[in-house]
Amino acid sequence: MSERVGLWLIGARGGVATVASIGLLSLQQKRVNESGLVTALPLFAEADLVDWSQIVIGGHEIRDTTLVEQAVNFQQTSRAFAPNLVEEIKEDLAEIDQRVVPGILHRCGVTIDQLAESKIQSDHRTVDEKLGQIKQDLLNFKQENELARVVVINVSSTEPPADASQLPDTWEAAASRLEEFPISSLYSIAALQTGCGYVNFTPSLGSNAPAICQLAEQQGLPHSGSDGKTGETLIKSALAPAFAMRNLEVLSWVGHNIFGNMDGLVLDNPENKKTKVDSKDRLLGEILGYDPQTHISIEYIKSLGDWKTAWDHIHFQGFLGTPMVMQFTWQGCDSILASPLVLDLMRLTERAMRAKQAGVMSSLACFFKSPMAVQENNFVHQFSMLERWVKDISV
Amino acid sequence: MSERVGLWLIGARGGVATVASIGLLSLQQKRVNESGLVTALPLFAEADLVDWSQIVIGGHEIRDTTLVEQAVNFQQTSRAFAPNLVEEIKEDLAEIDQRVVPGILHRCGVTIDQLAESKIQSDHRTVDEKLGQIKQDLLNFKQENELARVVVINVSSTEPPADASQLPDTWEAAASRLEEFPISSLYSIAALQTGCGYVNFTPSLGSNAPAICQLAEQQGLPHSGSDGKTGETLIKSALAPAFAMRNLEVLSWVGHNIFGNMDGLVLDNPENKKTKVDSKDRLLGEILGYDPQTHISIEYIKSLGDWKTAWDHIHFQGFLGTPMVMQFTWQGCDSILASPLVLDLMRLTERAMRAKQAGVMSSLACFFKSPMAVQENNFVHQFSMLERWVKDISV
Amino acid sequence: MSERVGLWLIGARGGVATVASIGLLSLQQKRVNESGLVTALPLFAEADLVDWSQIVIGGHEIRDTTLVEQAVNFQQTSRAFAPNLVEEIKEDLAEIDQRVVPGILHRCGVTIDQLAESKIQSDHRTVDEKLGQIKQDLLNFKQENELARVVVINVSSTEPPADASQLPDTWEAAASRLEEFPISSLYSIAALQTGCGYVNFTPSLGSNAPAICQLAEQQGLPHSGSDGKTGETLIKSALAPAFAMRNLEVLSWVGHNIFGNMDGLVLDNPENKKTKVDSKDRLLGEILGYDPQTHISIEYIKSLGDWKTAWDHIHFQGFLGTPMVMQFTWQGCDSILASPLVLDLMRLTERAMRAKQAGVMSSLACFFKSPMAVQENNFVHQFSMLERWVKDISV
Amino acid sequence: MSERVGLWLIGARGGVATVASIGLLSLQQKRVNESGLVTALPLFAEADLVDWSQIVIGGHEIRDTTLVEQAVNFQQTSRAFAPNLVEEIKEDLAEIDQRVVPGILHRCGVTIDQLAESKIQSDHRTVDEKLGQIKQDLLNFKQENELARVVVINVSSTEPPADASQLPDTWEAAASRLEEFPISSLYSIAALQTGCGYVNFTPSLGSNAPAICQLAEQQGLPHSGSDGKTGETLIKSALAPAFAMRNLEVLSWVGHNIFGNMDGLVLDNPENKKTKVDSKDRLLGEILGYDPQTHISIEYIKSLGDWKTAWDHIHFQGFLGTPMVMQFTWQGCDSILASPLVLDLMRLTERAMRAKQAGVMSSLACFFKSPMAVQENNFVHQFSMLERWVKDISV
Repeated sequence: MSERVGLWLIGARGGVATVASIGLLSLQQKRVNESGLVTALPLFAEADLVDWSQIVIGGHEIRDTTLVEQAVNFQQTSRAFAPNLVEEIKEDLAEIDQRVVPGILHRCGVTIDQLAESKIQSDHRTVDEKLGQIKQDLLNFKQENELARVVVINVSSTEPPADASQLPDTWEAAASRLEEFPISSLYSIAALQTGCGYVNFTPSLGSNAPAICQLAEQQGLPHSGSDGKTGETLIKSALAPAFAMRNLEVLSWVGHNIFGNMDGLVLDNPENKKTKVDSKDRLLGEILGYDPQTHISIEYIKSLGDWKTAWDHIHFQGFLGTPMVMQFTWQGCDSILASPLVLDLMRLTERAMRAKQAGVMSSLACFFKSPMAVQENNFVHQFSMLERWVKDISV
Repeated sequence: MSERVGLWLIGARGGVATVASIGLLSLQQKRVNESGLVTALPLFAEADLVDWSQIVIGGHEIRDTTLVEQAVNFQQTSRAFAPNLVEEIKEDLAEIDQRVVPGILHRCGVTIDQLAESKIQSDHRTVDEKLGQIKQDLLNFKQENELARVVVINVSSTEPPADASQLPDTWEAAASRLEEFPISSLYSIAALQTGCGYVNFTPSLGSNAPAICQLAEQQGLPHSGSDGKTGETLIKSALAPAFAMRNLEVLSWVGHNIFGNMDGLVLDNPENKKTKVDSKDRLLGEILGYDPQTHISIEYIKSLGDWKTAWDHIHFQGFLGTPMVMQFTWQGCDSILASPLVLDLMRLTERAMRAKQAGVMSSLACFFKSPMAVQENNFVHQFSMLERWVKDISV
Repeated sequence: MSERVGLWLIGARGGVATVASIGLLSLQQKRVNESGLVTALPLFAEADLVDWSQIVIGGHEIRDTTLVEQAVNFQQTSRAFAPNLVEEIKEDLAEIDQRVVPGILHRCGVTIDQLAESKIQSDHRTVDEKLGQIKQDLLNFKQENELARVVVINVSSTEPPADASQLPDTWEAAASRLEEFPISSLYSIAALQTGCGYVNFTPSLGSNAPAICQLAEQQGLPHSGSDGKTGETLIKSALAPAFAMRNLEVLSWVGHNIFGNMDGLVLDNPENKKTKVDSKDRLLGEILGYDPQTHISIEYIKSLGDWKTAWDHIHFQGFLGTPMVMQFTWQGCDSILASPLVLDLMRLTERAMRAKQAGVMSSLACFFKSPMAVQENNFVHQFSMLERWVKDISV
Repeated sequence: MSERVGLWLIGARGGVATVASIGLLSLQQKRVNESGLVTALPLFAEADLVDWSQIVIGGHEIRDTTLVEQAVNFQQTSRAFAPNLVEEIKEDLAEIDQRVVPGILHRCGVTIDQLAESKIQSDHRTVDEKLGQIKQDLLNFKQENELARVVVINVSSTEPPADASQLPDTWEAAASRLEEFPISSLYSIAALQTGCGYVNFTPSLGSNAPAICQLAEQQGLPHSGSDGKTGETLIKSALAPAFAMRNLEVLSWVGHNIFGNMDGLVLDNPENKKTKVDSKDRLLGEILGYDPQTHISIEYIKSLGDWKTAWDHIHFQGFLGTPMVMQFTWQGCDSILASPLVLDLMRLTERAMRAKQAGVMSSLACFFKSPMAVQENNFVHQFSMLERWVKDISV
């Protein structure tokens, strides 16, 4: 397969996107091994996934910055990769930057609005004009780079919660009420309408509304989400089943998260934080079959940069009513954990497009904190769903 | 089913056995709920397992003590259950004690020898006489208590390593070389020869030798082991798959265990400790597919009593070669975690006896650190093996 | 010295007071050793402190409960002391209970108001009448029990913050504006006016207002506070100096506290929590000489009962700008840590009364999170202040 | 003061020395701030310490490597400082390297012997010749670089324990039995005989023998040691006093240390490890006044490089016999923590030389795990000793 395919990132100069760009370049130039990439596991050997060399990155971004600036800043504050890597791929990063176009604001809350450069803040076009602009951006990307297929992935900041129950149920009804959807949803609509696959790596609404799911089916395109499962929640979804399967009653599960990146700054707004906490909190009850007391806090601690540190305290009851404790701490570099999953999701979604799979990709549940259309939250079981999909698609 | 069945414990006044006895009495008298019991999960509702009320406990013990003395001592040092529980069931415990007979020493190492009361230490009978004695003890237990079936479970202290490769391969050859087997194996032979099911809850050799496996097949009896998976290793077998499935390379995994019970005292002898560390250490390579540097230490810290505290430090490498860290601490009361599993294994083995299942019960892998005849160490996958067995056996 | 002296507790059936009562009885009856009591250190051998046998406890309480009920409940949820201790001292506890009289509400916030029994909630007396009642209660206690001296210690729930700067500066001015003071201050005024020493073990205002400090001087009585330093903050005040003295720059210090006792329930109200967080947070800047980013959270997790668990994450910068991390977890039983300090403070204050010391006892700084009239927060230096006082008073 | 002074490092291309050299160059070139340097605290403002610009580094080294090679390797494995720092000071490092001469082996154990380059391993000179060589090396360094004073600091690998009680008591007796002293002591003798101050930053014997102390007095030179207190032990010496001063009985204190640098490799030899563990373990009993059960383990975990990670578990007993737990983890970069202390000790010793102070510098106790001639192990009290010295020496 020598076609070229596109990865379009919403939030193209944010932490996750910046590291995804650095990572893709490093893979293309064989500077790094494939640690952290799920699709590099032997399991995928026969799955005919697109080669790293064929992928082209572009995207939307609302902030006034450059990829190189973000990369240098990331490396200085988080010291995550080999010291000279950024220096060596500077020019290639700048080239990706030229394929990044201005993002758009719409119902994404004041905290995100304020991050945008002033020209974007003062864009008063109608919602239809905005949607039209996004579609045009995607078509341009495809055409200018001669791409066979494009996957749009949302890696931008978390919006305040949107109440899906107040939104129209069908695409027919929604088409005339686009005004009511947040920008994350408009991006997903534009993607689907221009023939792109779509992935929501954030807890924002995105395509997770009945009307947009319908649109995806109509368009015959795959989509998935929500909210990449990268650290504390991944561990939760691996650990909680052990408590359930041993009939050890969880009395309380407290998770305290601290970090200092842009994501943390946005989540410092209680509105935006609510969306995230809900996403992190739901899986426990589903795995355990009952709802222990839980508490999740997320705090912005500037000095930590991208190093997301979590402390989880699990209070559980064993035989004869004996209370016991397990605690864990997780020290992970957020963008380093998230960005390979973005590359994985791109490859898997692109593969599904070639196989003409339409609708929610439930096989990707293991990648998400709140997998669309899937109740299963046991990580190993979710991974089995992916294994089955891979076996089916591997000829 | 109103038959009575027997649970025969090797090490009948040790920590695990004492709590198993307390626990069984508490269940029979409805003093506690079924937290911590795997077989109390809804999954087992139709499996026709023996009711708690039908189980009778007996066993072998080499030390000069009583169950009540052990129970009072355990409660004072470890404060694990309701303050007045021991007081309330004192007399019932004393009754179980009357079914405990003197244990036997043979090739179990000097540390264990020294724990035994002097009469047992000076027993110089031949190995055939010793085996005969054990068989007679089991038959007496069965007859005197009118038991339909008996399951023998080894919950005694860990022996020094025995080299199975030096032992005879077939039961025919072994029968004339019994002298070479450690006492844990003699107990398993006696169990199988008197028609009992057998479970090895320790890392000692037990029935885990080809010759004894052959005997079990010949006798048409189920057996399983080795080494109950109760705490740190349980968590390892739930966590390690998450690293494998995310292609996060584990660079090193260090586990430091401290506790102050009798088990800890025996493991303070490097010979005995070696058996245990090997059992705790093997699963990682099998789950990950490669062997990271590992270090496991076990230290006797008297003040902790039965509270086994473990610190695990997992150093792993993510995308772009970025090193990250996960740590956990586990504070579990060892006998409280182990004893319900002993009751579970008794019920499951007894059920297999009724179903005429013979040989190693690979379906019980999830209960063991080193499951016999099973390579799978992913805890969730092991549990699926149990689920399949339960579905088959539930009518 | 064979005089009897009184310890009057505000919040006499709360967790700290209940354990203080159990503890004093246990000491008087020689059931326990003196672990956890500062005044039992050899340092105090010659200080002529009152003997445990001479102390009589009484107090105010707003809730409708009994000491025995509280003690049984505490032991069941927190399993903190020998199983049968409560049973053995039940009758003596009930005797103390007879010296506990109804507490009084005044400007202590809605969360505390709601804890009170209905009769107390509907008490509409004037502030002067309320003050009069408290004074009468103290005088009755002294007279009925033939006490040479009484020390009043506030161990009740934390009030919302009171703005001391809005209160009158002098006792003369305050006397006619008592209405403006919260109940914690009224108790301190009553104590001083009836010749009692006073200690504020809580972060509420208490005697920590210029007018009341003046009153103490006028009355020639010792007082101290605020907020007993029992766990996480104690450790902070011991650790932070090491960072300062090594010139390791603290970049951020995060403390996350979880527990499930009555104190936790009251602190679940953000108003009341603010008082506490301020008290826990101030010392760091004073020890370090600069203000790193800090975050303190306190969450009510019911299952933990009185076991206060804290996780602290200290991010600091070493030589050449290298960021490093220290973390600690603290698992302490709150009332068990606090109550011996209450008994210590009683003895030390009583001793100061005999020595005719008046005003704030700055020598007691090591006992408090926010020591009155003292800037020193280095725990070892604070302890040196106590050592000097003891040396002066011993002879 | 514009004299130049020398810092002579034994183990001049080891981790600590390499970072000390990088650090000194960075300070001289104003590339970094003074974080982590004790002598940069305001306390020392008037102490007339030598300026960074006046210090010249030289040393002995037994391994076949270069400072630049060590620096590059350190930065790659431990990512401890700004990515491009090493690149920028490469040439200056190479210049220091030219002042490093071959080290010498004598009674330092097989593990250290094997690290040496072959020429050094096959050096069969007599002990007198060896001592002569070292003295000549020091004199050359002083003369060639026109140095007013030189301080020799041992930062080499830990030797196996030497039994000081078997060594001669007086310098007179020792002079004819030099053969019996390990190389660390020979270096100290050479230093003192050539007029240099001496600091033992390791737990090896060094000058910590009565005969050598006598020599120092005779020569009128200051010396100090042993074993730099950089991480876990520093924290211990700050925390343990809090337990002592609160009369909280420590039941057990377990410390588990893992790291992967050269030091860790040498300590993997049980002989060498013993010296280190003894040094880490002794302070607890002295601070607490009794000896709780302790356990210290040190394990070589390659992947951690210079990042020394420690887990400490403190089991203690509070009031009414209630057991509680504090745990901490320390993640510190060893050479980054140690090297500024080496620079501090150089400045303080050089200052003492100018003040004609002779003998053991007990004022430096706060820098050492096993301070010579000092019983005080409370870190804050040790720091007060330093404060007093500074105040005396500041005119």
